[in-house]
Amino acid sequence: MKEVVVGIDIGGTNTKFGIAALDGKLLFKSSCPTNSDKPISNLFKKILIDIKKYQNEFKITGIGIGAPNANYFTGYIEAPPNLGWGTVDVKKEMGKLISCPVALTNDANAGALGELIFGNGKGINDFIFITLGTGLGSGLIVDGKLVYGHDGFAGEIGHVIVKENGRQCGCGRKGCLETYVSAPGLKRTAYEILSDLNIESSLNKIPYEKVTAKDIYKAAVAGDKIAILTFEKTGEILGKALANSVAYLSPKAIFLFGGLVEAGDLLFKPVIKHMNENMLNIMKNKTKVLPSGLKEGSAAVLGAAALIITELNKK
Amino acid sequence: MKEVVVGIDIGGTNTKFGIAALDGKLLFKSSCPTNSDKPISNLFKKILIDIKKYQNEFKITGIGIGAPNANYFTGYIEAPPNLGWGTVDVKKEMGKLISCPVALTNDANAGALGELIFGNGKGINDFIFITLGTGLGSGLIVDGKLVYGHDGFAGEIGHVIVKENGRQCGCGRKGCLETYVSAPGLKRTAYEILSDLNIESSLNKIPYEKVTAKDIYKAAVAGDKIAILTFEKTGEILGKALANSVAYLSPKAIFLFGGLVEAGDLLFKPVIKHMNENMLNIMKNKTKVLPSGLKEGSAAVLGAAALIITELNKK
Repeated sequence: MKEVVVGIDIGGTNTKFGIAALDGKLLFKSSCPTNSDKPISNLFKKILIDIKKYQNEFKITGIGIGAPNANYFTGYIEAPPNLGWGTVDVKKEMGKLISCPVALTNDANAGALGELIFGNGKGINDFIFITLGTGLGSGLIVDGKLVYGHDGFAGEIGHVIVKENGRQCGCGRKGCLETYVSAPGLKRTAYEILSDLNIESSLNKIPYEKVTAKDIYKAAVAGDKIAILTFEKTGEILGKALANSVAYLSPKAIFLFGGLVEAGDLLFKPVIKHMNENMLNIMKNKTKVLPSGLKEGSAAVLGAAALIITELNKK
Repeated sequence: MKEVVVGIDIGGTNTKFGIAALDGKLLFKSSCPTNSDKPISNLFKKILIDIKKYQNEFKITGIGIGAPNANYFTGYIEAPPNLGWGTVDVKKEMGKLISCPVALTNDANAGALGELIFGNGKGINDFIFITLGTGLGSGLIVDGKLVYGHDGFAGEIGHVIVKENGRQCGCGRKGCLETYVSAPGLKRTAYEILSDLNIESSLNKIPYEKVTAKDIYKAAVAGDKIAILTFEKTGEILGKALANSVAYLSPKAIFLFGGLVEAGDLLFKPVIKHMNENMLNIMKNKTKVLPSGLKEGSAAVLGAAALIITELNKK
């Protein structure tokens, strides 16, 4: 029977899950509401009903789980603000329902492992994976392995403070990178520039709460000055932050993942320019900034699958 | 015959070297002028004459070298500003004179390995080693190993830019951490505060070029307000920078090494306070900031020895 793994990506609203072959081919994919107002066992039972339909075809050798504030070492999810479970022993809860190895980490770390095993990070021993969405998540690959740190929480580049007394962050502090570089960060920058320049822009015609990163992208492509400046500023802030990341880790590549990456050169050009301009001489122009090789729709599940495949390969 | 290693620390002015047992005991220690206006082979020949006096007592199993801009992967020193050799193939030059394994890296990386094997980092898998002297050097230990990055130059926390358009750094850029946190950085901060507050201070009585970090320390201990504020500000800047370091790597400990560390609580208290105040909630109060376990006089040679011992243990 073909050996496979299960990947589960728990999000605040929806949970994606699927069955992946060991070469990263997705054999089955689905999703369901997370419903974190009910016990996590309800969610897991629902997922396993779907998964077990395939148990005559595939041998499930392990389950990988990506989730916010997930701790690789303890197997707990530690009270993330967008999930109602508080702190919960995920490994134990899953272990009550199915007998196979289970591993978990946060979604960005899982994404980094997905990039390493199935994406553009194949064969690259040192890279940084950055996911740009409602926040900025990151996973660090050093010497071919994911960096967990002593407590499982390493790789929080989104919460590096890039500006003292800067923008209010959801984490309670001010000036975190993700308040500038993320989908909401892009929008905040657009309105900062709008309020500064006070000129015509297609963004003026949409209420603040309805403006999306996509609107800003479309406006930029159509030549809207505010939107173009917004991408330049966002790229500048990310580029400068990445110059500092390179001072720490000197990675061969930095992979960007997520909706914002579709902006292409609008984002990448200023990122690369400002990164190299702000880099230490001996490091300049060595680190590539590249789009992730993972596909938006399958990355989360594949990342979780990559996590458990990595664990199984350790044994 | 007892197996030993040789540790060499090449500095801009002087080079320290010695013979170390595999348990970190220094069996012989010396130093000589670096004279980088002459070929590096002259320096190595001089060192080896001293070392070879012991060849009837000890079996030399390898040589570790710490030097500025030293590249672990290539074996080259890459044109550091304070050495006149330009880019030089150190491993090859040493290999012409003695037949044994040779490894090199920069002095701060070597220090981190010294801390890991012989210092307070024993048994700690994830820590950051920071050396505060004329600059700020650092070495990162992740999962029990030194982080080299893809090109051998990882761990340059001293050149993380902490303030946009900040102080002029010797590297040509502005606002690098080491322009604030180092012996010269301390002095620059003292004069910044002096020029701001324009009040009485014992530092007013010494010409700028003669003021040392030690003077500022002594003044602070004697209750001088400017000197006390200088340590507070320096600790604040380092503490905030370390909060960001923890967001990257979530280390169990951060070890501080070098002359400034003798200031004790004057430095450590504000560092620890501001680090924890600026840390992401899930990381707060977990990472310790501690003095290095290495002794000022022997650390450089022991670090270089630790490097080659690490290499020999890989085989």
